[in-house]
Amino acid sequence: MEMLSCNLNRDNEVPLYEQLYKFIKNEILEGRIPYGTKLPSKRKLAEFLKISQNTVETTYDQLVAEGYVEGIARKGYYVLTYEDLEYIQAAKRQQKSSMPKERLIRYDFHPSRIDTENFPFVKWRKYAKSFIDQEHQSLLLMGQSQGEYVLREEIANYLYQARGVHCTADDIVLGAGIEILLQQLILLLGPEVAYGVEDPGYHVISSILKNYPNEVCPIKVDDSGAQVGSLEQSKIDVVYVTPSHHFPYGSVLSANRRIKLLNWAASGENRFVIEDDYDSEFRYSGKSIPSLQSMDHSGKVIYLGTFSKSLIPSIRISYMVLPKGLMKRYQEELTFFQCSVSRIDQHILAQFMKQGDFEKHLNRMRKVYRRKMEKTVELLVPHQEKLKVVGDISGFHIVLEVNNTMSEKDLVEKAKNNDMRVYPLSAYAIEKQFHSQPRIILGFAGIPEAELEQAIKLLLESWNI
Amino acid sequence: MEMLSCNLNRDNEVPLYEQLYKFIKNEILEGRIPYGTKLPSKRKLAEFLKISQNTVETTYDQLVAEGYVEGIARKGYYVLTYEDLEYIQAAKRQQKSSMPKERLIRYDFHPSRIDTENFPFVKWRKYAKSFIDQEHQSLLLMGQSQGEYVLREEIANYLYQARGVHCTADDIVLGAGIEILLQQLILLLGPEVAYGVEDPGYHVISSILKNYPNEVCPIKVDDSGAQVGSLEQSKIDVVYVTPSHHFPYGSVLSANRRIKLLNWAASGENRFVIEDDYDSEFRYSGKSIPSLQSMDHSGKVIYLGTFSKSLIPSIRISYMVLPKGLMKRYQEELTFFQCSVSRIDQHILAQFMKQGDFEKHLNRMRKVYRRKMEKTVELLVPHQEKLKVVGDISGFHIVLEVNNTMSEKDLVEKAKNNDMRVYPLSAYAIEKQFHSQPRIILGFAGIPEAELEQAIKLLLESWNI
Repeated sequence: MEMLSCNLNRDNEVPLYEQLYKFIKNEILEGRIPYGTKLPSKRKLAEFLKISQNTVETTYDQLVAEGYVEGIARKGYYVLTYEDLEYIQAAKRQQKSSMPKERLIRYDFHPSRIDTENFPFVKWRKYAKSFIDQEHQSLLLMGQSQGEYVLREEIANYLYQARGVHCTADDIVLGAGIEILLQQLILLLGPEVAYGVEDPGYHVISSILKNYPNEVCPIKVDDSGAQVGSLEQSKIDVVYVTPSHHFPYGSVLSANRRIKLLNWAASGENRFVIEDDYDSEFRYSGKSIPSLQSMDHSGKVIYLGTFSKSLIPSIRISYMVLPKGLMKRYQEELTFFQCSVSRIDQHILAQFMKQGDFEKHLNRMRKVYRRKMEKTVELLVPHQEKLKVVGDISGFHIVLEVNNTMSEKDLVEKAKNNDMRVYPLSAYAIEKQFHSQPRIILGFAGIPEAELEQAIKLLLESWNI
Repeated sequence: MEMLSCNLNRDNEVPLYEQLYKFIKNEILEGRIPYGTKLPSKRKLAEFLKISQNTVETTYDQLVAEGYVEGIARKGYYVLTYEDLEYIQAAKRQQKSSMPKERLIRYDFHPSRIDTENFPFVKWRKYAKSFIDQEHQSLLLMGQSQGEYVLREEIANYLYQARGVHCTADDIVLGAGIEILLQQLILLLGPEVAYGVEDPGYHVISSILKNYPNEVCPIKVDDSGAQVGSLEQSKIDVVYVTPSHHFPYGSVLSANRRIKLLNWAASGENRFVIEDDYDSEFRYSGKSIPSLQSMDHSGKVIYLGTFSKSLIPSIRISYMVLPKGLMKRYQEELTFFQCSVSRIDQHILAQFMKQGDFEKHLNRMRKVYRRKMEKTVELLVPHQEKLKVVGDISGFHIVLEVNNTMSEKDLVEKAKNNDMRVYPLSAYAIEKQFHSQPRIILGFAGIPEAELEQAIKLLLESWNI
């Protein structure tokens, strides 16, 4: 124990050494200073509490006398065991008890899980090493509030090449997760605008919006994506969509609806479309789906992207591309928000992109995920009478319609009993949905390739399929 | 250029090669594909756009014929210069022009700046290296939403020892900056509560609150800290204070007011005190100031802390300690917020703390900052007739009352003309303040020790002192 903070009262009748003694004794009894702890040295504690060393000495002597503490020559004072040790240990146990103990899950089919076996640790470590260096002292201070220019420039280049997004570094804001950026967007667009969100959809969006005064209207989704046809008749101002790969259905917003959506947005000053392009890097078949932003000529699309899928989720780097008008407002009203991403991490990523390692990583991962997806589908096809794969096949998950008389709840439960986690589609719905059949979201990306076959077989077994 | 994204329309009368040709030509003319860029190989582009290689070949031939592109044998196709090159370059220049060009600032006295000369790069690199490793694959996935348990445990230990804060890992939420945590708090406490904020005070708080529906009432500050005496008569529910070292004045909240504040909070169900303990690690004289949280027995204090001062601001790690009741509500309502701090960074910091390196770093930095503070004051003392140091001396800045007939604006301007930045106290005020004298905030922490004397002298010269 380096130091001990105690609120001593000099005006109190109780002498200082006694106040300190009572305090330490109490902390030991309550288990907050655990058995075996070395107390701060007399000199250091006296200096810290601004009291004389004699006072501390008297306190420690008293504690030694009463058997709470042991003094060891040339080593210091240690908290001792005593009759009531049981009590202390119970307190300690209680204090530690909440260390998360989760049921051991063998296979987790969560759609946000990624492959961790192919992360380029060596490259990443190399770049990390070069930025955690005396030469980069200035990176210890706060950077630009939109994020480091060098990374924003790499992202702008990447978005243009991969998604046809038209933007420069100036149009980009970085943030530690889509949730962080969305909150900034909600503040930027103001409390008056009504949001339209896909239903079912990415549930975090509606969870966040629920905490703001804004009105939220669900928009139904079908095989051609969000049903945006009746927007003109609604009071919606801002639409949140996942046009390239609807989450969780997997459908693609049709060309016809894209144009409708953009025309709708273009014809109202406060109308905007938030395009969440969360996994567009990973398409395995069919032609590539252009981004809405690349089709927009009216400055109406706010483009959201993330490295959670394309790199790793735990690095917490996401970005938004704002139309010029909104960016102006952002810079006037919101730049008191410091960039929420570690500055060194931003430079590591920028270097990783600049040197072509990101592109290489994407190419490698596209193959890995395609193999996992093909394997998954291949294992499900023989059971067509009971299983149907719904939606476009891309990204990290499929939607499975299950026809074995079990409810969504049953399916989740049965999997859990076999140490697996799958997710019911209903968890992503805002309004109650009426499907003919239960639907399960099956994220295949996070299952190790060598175990995928076993995992799927185990799952089907648990469902009696 | 690795890839080129283009929205081709197969139903269009215009043949695909012509659509592609027009697209690329237009991108070159607009300067979006700059001079000298290597176009994607025919094979790759064909694969990417799901068109035949012949189509790409026809397109490239056309572009070569018209002088936009040059084909180099065994190398590929490169964008060429042409008569209108000026136009392209102008577009390129425009696109890049916003790379931030700031006036060279020799000395920046911003109060948030820290010393960067003494950061333990070697240790940090060592821990970073060990976590960016195949063995830590699981750290690539998302972690616990309150932050990594191992880091929260280290923070709980540290807070108890250094600040007497009573908490366990379970009570702590980590976030990428105080702003992020504050936004979560605002959502948690709901739109009905009215906030009291120090005036002058940490301006980011009021800037954030301004964007929420909550009412905000300023609380005046004097030499004994925030004037909390009249809270009972106000409609305030939640008070934001910096009791250990008021920002920016530097005053300490008096014992009397602390008790008043805690009693006020204890007597209303929705009343809370947000204690921002932003720089309490750095006190150089007088007795240590206990945290409000350590004096609170009613679960009414929300404790905010950060590593921005004690370590580095650009790492973006802050934390809040919630009273049990609020934590319960947090876990019920807000855990859809993923932790906004990089998981690897959390583990690096936890290891840094566990191995005692954080404590060592603090001890070293306390000496460095004390020397800087003493040097600063020593250089100002001879000019007592024109300068007065206001507030308690601790932390990273002093408040300077300047009596040389210049206004705050003049003082800032004169410093700027000599390539220095100082900050007027009025920038931190909510309501208009009436000081007898202009006051300047002088952050000394970020000036290199060897240049501090020169910096202060230069500053005084620029003020004709």
